[in-house]
Amino acid sequence: MRVAALISGGKDSLLAFHLASKHHEVGCFVTVIPSNPDSFMYHTPNLNLVDAIASSIGKPILKVPSSGLEESEVEDLLKAVELLKVDGLVVGGIASSYQKKRFERICESIGIELIAPLWGWKDEEVISTASELFEAVIVKVSAMGLDESWLGKRIDGELIENLKKVKERYGINLAGEGGEFETLVLDAPFFRRRIRIKGSHVVSDPLSATLIVDEFYLEEKPKQIGQAFSRSDAQV
Amino acid sequence: MRVAALISGGKDSLLAFHLASKHHEVGCFVTVIPSNPDSFMYHTPNLNLVDAIASSIGKPILKVPSSGLEESEVEDLLKAVELLKVDGLVVGGIASSYQKKRFERICESIGIELIAPLWGWKDEEVISTASELFEAVIVKVSAMGLDESWLGKRIDGELIENLKKVKERYGINLAGEGGEFETLVLDAPFFRRRIRIKGSHVVSDPLSATLIVDEFYLEEKPKQIGQAFSRSDAQV
Repeated sequence: MRVAALISGGKDSLLAFHLASKHHEVGCFVTVIPSNPDSFMYHTPNLNLVDAIASSIGKPILKVPSSGLEESEVEDLLKAVELLKVDGLVVGGIASSYQKKRFERICESIGIELIAPLWGWKDEEVISTASELFEAVIVKVSAMGLDESWLGKRIDGELIENLKKVKERYGINLAGEGGEFETLVLDAPFFRRRIRIKGSHVVSDPLSATLIVDEFYLEEKPKQIGQAFSRSDAQV
Repeated sequence: MRVAALISGGKDSLLAFHLASKHHEVGCFVTVIPSNPDSFMYHTPNLNLVDAIASSIGKPILKVPSSGLEESEVEDLLKAVELLKVDGLVVGGIASSYQKKRFERICESIGIELIAPLWGWKDEEVISTASELFEAVIVKVSAMGLDESWLGKRIDGELIENLKKVKERYGINLAGEGGEFETLVLDAPFFRRRIRIKGSHVVSDPLSATLIVDEFYLEEKPKQIGQAFSRSDAQV
C-alpha cells in the first residue's frame, strides 16, 4: 500500500522509513515545522536539512506548520495528512505510549493505518542498527551526563559504549527516546547524495546544547558495487 | 473545490494564490526544490523562505525534489501533485504558453483543473497589483539595464517607474516574466507574520546577481482594524 513517513531528519524516523519501505510504497515524507517566530533560525537546526534528506532520497516532503502546542500539532498534522492519498502513516516511535496514542488518534480519524516498525524495540537495538546503517551525528543533547562535547559526534560503536556508561550512571535511554539527545542522518544506503556539513556553531542554554548547521552541501556518492554502506566509500 | 497552489515565494505565484483563494479552498502549497548538489546553499536563495511563507500563511507545503531538467521536473511535479487529494492546481503563469502547456499536461494527466488567475494579464497590471498588495523585494536580476543595485529594493511605484525606463530601452517585461528579475514576498494581507531579513549577501556572475538571505525571522504583525494592507502598519 502507499504510505507517508513522518520524518524529523533523525535516526529513528529514517530507520522507520527504511523498514517500512520494504513492505510499502512510501509516496512522500511529512514533517512538522514550528511556526513560532524565533524558531526558523535557532530552535530547529534541521529545518533545511530535512529538505536535503528528502532530496537525497528523491521523495517529496510535506511540511506542516504548527504552533508547537501539543493539541494544535495533532490537529495540524491530521489536516495535512488528510490531504494525502495514502493508506498509512509511518512513525519512528519506540516506546512512548503517549505519542503512539496521539498518532493512532490521527490515523483512526482519517481512516488510515499507523505503521510503527520500531515499536517495542530495545533502545540498544535501535541505536546499534542506526549506527550500522547510517552516518548519523548528535545535534542536540539535553540530559545529565551529556554535554557540548558530544555534539557532532558520529553514532558508532565507541559512542554507544560511552552512552552505556552514561546510562549506568544516570539512567538515560540509549536511543534518546526521552529527548536525551537528537541525531541527524547525513548518509544512508538509500541516499543518492550525502550531506556534508561545512560550517556549524553551538547554542547552549542551562538545559541543552544544540549544534546549528550554518552551511552544508550535498555530495555525489561514488558508484558502489552492489549494496554497500557509506562507510565503504572511505576506500575511494 | 479544494486545490493546491504552486508557489516559489515570488509575487506572481502568491498573487495567483491570493486570487484563487477567493473562489477555492487552497489546501496546500507545492514548490519544486532543486536536487543538484550545489543548489541548496547558492542557487535557491528562497528555499528556506518558502517554508517561512507557508508558515506565515498557515498552510502545509509539499516540496518536490527535482533535478531541474525540464522533462524530469514535469514528471516529478506530476507524481507529487498526484499524491494530493485536490481537484485543481493554481499557477502564477502570465504569458508563457510553453509553461502553460506543461502545466496543462500535468493537470490533464491526473484529471485535475489548471487554474491560472493571472493568465493574460498585462505586465504592468501584474506588477502594480503586486506592489499594492505585497511587501515584495527584488532578489535576483538577470537582464540588460538591471544590476546589483536593484537587489533588495521594494516593489513600489518608484521602482515600477524605473522598470518602465528599462523596458523602453531594452524591452524587458515589467513583471519579470522572461526571467529578467525575481521577487520575494515578505508580507501580504494574508500573512500572519511578516518576514524580516536580518542578514544577506550578493552573489554575482556574468549573467545575473542574486541576493542570498543568510538570516531572517518572522515578526508578529500588529493587530489591524478591518482589512488593511501591510503598508498601514507603518502608523503603529
